[in-house]
Amino acid sequence: MTELLPNYVAGRWQAGSGAGTALIDPVLGTELARVDATGLDLAEAFGFARETGGAALRALTYKERAALLAAVVKVLQANRDAYYEIATANSGTVKNDSAVDIDGAIFTLGQYAKWGDALGEVRALRDGDAARLGKEPVFLSQHLQVPTPGVALFINAFNFPSWGLWEKAAPALLSGVPVIVKPATSTAWLTQRMVRDVVEAGVLPAGALSVICGSSNGLMDQLQGFDVVSFTGSADTGAVIRSHAAVAQRSVRVNIEADSLNSALLLPDAAPGSDAFNLLVREVVREMTVKSGQKCTAIRRILVPAAVYDAAAEAIGAKLAGVTVGNPRNESVRMGSLVSRAQLNAVRQGLEELKAQASVLHDGSQAALVDADPAIAACIGPVLLGARDADAAQRVHDVEVFGPVATLLPYRDVEHAIALAHRGQGSLVTSLYGADEAALGQAAVQLAASHGRVHVITPDVAQAHTGHGNVMPQSLHGGPGRAGGGAELGGLRALDFYHCKSAVQASPAVLAQLGLSGG
Amino acid sequence: MTELLPNYVAGRWQAGSGAGTALIDPVLGTELARVDATGLDLAEAFGFARETGGAALRALTYKERAALLAAVVKVLQANRDAYYEIATANSGTVKNDSAVDIDGAIFTLGQYAKWGDALGEVRALRDGDAARLGKEPVFLSQHLQVPTPGVALFINAFNFPSWGLWEKAAPALLSGVPVIVKPATSTAWLTQRMVRDVVEAGVLPAGALSVICGSSNGLMDQLQGFDVVSFTGSADTGAVIRSHAAVAQRSVRVNIEADSLNSALLLPDAAPGSDAFNLLVREVVREMTVKSGQKCTAIRRILVPAAVYDAAAEAIGAKLAGVTVGNPRNESVRMGSLVSRAQLNAVRQGLEELKAQASVLHDGSQAALVDADPAIAACIGPVLLGARDADAAQRVHDVEVFGPVATLLPYRDVEHAIALAHRGQGSLVTSLYGADEAALGQAAVQLAASHGRVHVITPDVAQAHTGHGNVMPQSLHGGPGRAGGGAELGGLRALDFYHCKSAVQASPAVLAQLGLSGG
Repeated sequence: MTELLPNYVAGRWQAGSGAGTALIDPVLGTELARVDATGLDLAEAFGFARETGGAALRALTYKERAALLAAVVKVLQANRDAYYEIATANSGTVKNDSAVDIDGAIFTLGQYAKWGDALGEVRALRDGDAARLGKEPVFLSQHLQVPTPGVALFINAFNFPSWGLWEKAAPALLSGVPVIVKPATSTAWLTQRMVRDVVEAGVLPAGALSVICGSSNGLMDQLQGFDVVSFTGSADTGAVIRSHAAVAQRSVRVNIEADSLNSALLLPDAAPGSDAFNLLVREVVREMTVKSGQKCTAIRRILVPAAVYDAAAEAIGAKLAGVTVGNPRNESVRMGSLVSRAQLNAVRQGLEELKAQASVLHDGSQAALVDADPAIAACIGPVLLGARDADAAQRVHDVEVFGPVATLLPYRDVEHAIALAHRGQGSLVTSLYGADEAALGQAAVQLAASHGRVHVITPDVAQAHTGHGNVMPQSLHGGPGRAGGGAELGGLRALDFYHCKSAVQASPAVLAQLGLSGG
Repeated sequence: MTELLPNYVAGRWQAGSGAGTALIDPVLGTELARVDATGLDLAEAFGFARETGGAALRALTYKERAALLAAVVKVLQANRDAYYEIATANSGTVKNDSAVDIDGAIFTLGQYAKWGDALGEVRALRDGDAARLGKEPVFLSQHLQVPTPGVALFINAFNFPSWGLWEKAAPALLSGVPVIVKPATSTAWLTQRMVRDVVEAGVLPAGALSVICGSSNGLMDQLQGFDVVSFTGSADTGAVIRSHAAVAQRSVRVNIEADSLNSALLLPDAAPGSDAFNLLVREVVREMTVKSGQKCTAIRRILVPAAVYDAAAEAIGAKLAGVTVGNPRNESVRMGSLVSRAQLNAVRQGLEELKAQASVLHDGSQAALVDADPAIAACIGPVLLGARDADAAQRVHDVEVFGPVATLLPYRDVEHAIALAHRGQGSLVTSLYGADEAALGQAAVQLAASHGRVHVITPDVAQAHTGHGNVMPQSLHGGPGRAGGGAELGGLRALDFYHCKSAVQASPAVLAQLGLSGG
């Protein structure tokens, strides 16, 4: 029997009382560890976090809490090699892909440590300037933000066991809000190990960070009026969370990041062989293959001028043909496996759905695997689909295949292209490729209405741009509509979710006593 | 038969096909008009607003839309006398109370017209400064906001048929988002008349403003991913709205303003007869009686030092004894009626619930009415309750009696007082009375965690302060937890709800082409 990973709640390590669910190496098919949350006293767990953890965190200033994040960074850096090993074993990712998860988390924590340090030795944040409430400036309205006196529950997705925790925990802890993370079961090991390392290092106050591995049953029931819940995963589960009494009746704030049919859009001025064309091809191939396409931000739809369709299909296909797939332990492998056989089956099924309305332009799905048994490994090579009638191919705008799959779509003119991008009904990100800055700026504003992020790649930023799918902590992460309507990151904007906003109406002398940041 | 007030949807006046629901004069008991929404083509109504109204509004700049608001102000001012007559007849309010609703609306519209004018001739709003995404400033992240390409549905409460429409419509229209308002049936007349006047004046683009009177059946079903819904009313209905598929599954953004057990807190340093003490007494009496206590922001709980309890009871009771109640058409009447007999019954029932845990300190409920038949009129005089054990009186912190009723509660020390205020589990507003500015500032920050607004009254602002219950457009209106978690007003903060936020990542040259406000 493999190790049963304990949960950390109410300030102590607690094993579940059930047999547990096995975590599997998706390449080798071997069992790695087990997780179980059966029998935990969830009321005690949430109460301890909310009261003990919350009180300790709120007693600190923003600058002091920023120092906690910096201390977490040191702990994670010290144990970085172990995390890469776990990622290889449990997520089946090559080193570069593990880095997105592990180093991405450390980078994000470091950014919030830096930003938080600049907030200073205060316990409440100034929100804008004071506004007069009459002709004379004798009675004013000053908005401020204070930490919500509750707990933050994170119900996370399998694709980012590290970054998914820390990109949420960084702003939460900086805000003074204790965190309970429930990682997706299939890849829970890395999350659990990171929490273990941080707990053992003793760098956070008791109750500030808890981890519950296994079933999420009963977690939502524990939430009270000032708690918040942040969910990343399917739209269906998102709807269940949003309908839960905690949200519907107790006004628990909810952040949801769900399905997203992201797009890449080559502007009309970009001919085959142009810089913009080549940048699109490179970025599409990167997005399809990084983490085997298991990123919420990955490009799913590629919009190109109709005249460029064939050339784009050829150029993308040629590059995809060079992608080696298989065991991430083999250095010749560029793309590892999906997270599980269940995901592999879901991707295959999704491919069939799309194929009913699209043709195959490049098929890597049958290619030989390197160092991996196709009967066991959750590996699949990249597949480029195409649909010459982009309007008719409804499923392409509707079905998110969470793997190395994207669909090429031709458009007539830029209005048509923007309309097709909007067909995603709200997405996390779109990227634009071109050289006409005025046209790019205009398209970016139009696309902003249905995308949380618009990534514009011009030839002059070929080296400097940060990537379509990379989520930078400086920028908003989340999208409207089917993407869930969430708002994470975006620098200090992320703190809003963990704060209560209030308008204090008072004389200038009283306002001077509030002890706010800045100003 | 009285007039059946038509609805205005899809650019034309449309009568419901049913018999309608009668609107009643709550003082005289007579029927005033009828409303009905049976048989409306709601899909057409929402489609017309979303497409025709939305496109027309978004084609304008913020400055141009601000001019629309200024034009609406002129229309409402020109018809102001008619609105006062409708308010007297349909809401049973005295002139001063009607003013809160009518002139409060005009003032709020005027403020947004002014603020919007300053945003200038742009169609997208800058959100903060651009942030570098690398060491060199060659690739940046610029956040911006653009109007959500949807419709705003307002499901409003009976107590503010005028202000409730315009405090929401002002930021929505300024944001470029068309409005469909569903007023509470019992007082729908004023809302319908105002929409009629604005439509007849032709000052808004077709589809920008619609009104549906009567049942709200089917309205939520029409909402799509980029629409928003704003509800003011009971927590129970709020929960139904939040659980609706439009919200849970389609990520329709929702703003809810629900029950609130607001408080007033006399700080420990205020002795009977002090300025602060007198200011508390005056404000409590005003809040209990304005609009007969039918304000979401009215003071429901009065927290005073235990030593001051008896003096406060006496002083408040003495002032309440002078409040004349009855027909608002009689100039000697200070307080008119509740909105309906149903509300009168609800208030009486709520009083009984509270009396199980509180004693009566002043009973105006049996006093004679002026010019009104107690068997017909929905009038009730003010009632001051008191509970010497504030901790034990759970219902006082839980049951919102929506009428001229408040409960006096003694506290031991300021920590106890703050804990009692928090017992409301999230409220719209609390007010503080004292002279010690440091103590007031400290208490204000602590109370900010559970109150959307903290109103601080010191002797130096006795004349200048804007009132505990008055909602100023400069300040946030909404509260966490049981208050619904909403956020209205707060100056330009109100525009957030009607905008999509996006991060554009691009070169400085592309960002220069976005055409953003300010900066």
